[in-house]
Amino acid sequence: MLDKTMRMNYLYDFYQSLLTPKQRNYMGLYYLDDYSLGEIAEQYHVSRQAVYDNIKRTEAMLEEYEDKLGLFAKFQEREQLLSSLRELLKSEPDNVLAIIDRLENME
Amino acid sequence: MLDKTMRMNYLYDFYQSLLTPKQRNYMGLYYLDDYSLGEIAEQYHVSRQAVYDNIKRTEAMLEEYEDKLGLFAKFQEREQLLSSLRELLKSEPDNVLAIIDRLENME
Repeated sequence: MLDKTMRMNYLYDFYQSLLTPKQRNYMGLYYLDDYSLGEIAEQYHVSRQAVYDNIKRTEAMLEEYEDKLGLFAKFQEREQLLSSLRELLKSEPDNVLAIIDRLENME
Repeated sequence: MLDKTMRMNYLYDFYQSLLTPKQRNYMGLYYLDDYSLGEIAEQYHVSRQAVYDNIKRTEAMLEEYEDKLGLFAKFQEREQLLSSLRELLKSEPDNVLAIIDRLENME
């Protein structure tokens, strides 16, 4: 299991276009720029609790998008296949075609 | 430009998990099973206009998801790279690594 911050960074990367501007701002400051909840609250003139609730809801939305679309899971699977491809190409070029087939059938 | 039915089939394939069950039913019958608007209306005991409006709204939603996430565009790009990879592997295995690099950096 990935560390939560790293996982949220990836999910944010894949699905940020589906969030509202406010959700993007809070998530970006919290996860990418490492602001505290209090610092975000101060900057937006809202309560710390409001920021916390918004971020929790956004995290749940990102996990829901990942359940439905699985872009991060597919990305990880593809990375593994490409890494195998690179290794195989050095030693057994003939087996590379089998991996290309799997990549082509992944969607 | 792809034929619209084919494009909608692809977009439906990529984004159907983000639609409501009713949207999925209408779109599936209309685009995958080739039912007419009248036949769908009859099956669901609603007006032909209601089915038409729902399908038009769903088509617009699918295009909006594609604008935001670009899964179909990336799929097409990946298919092209994999096809180049397959060809190159037959003739110039050394250049295959450059294509693997591009695939790895695509997200």
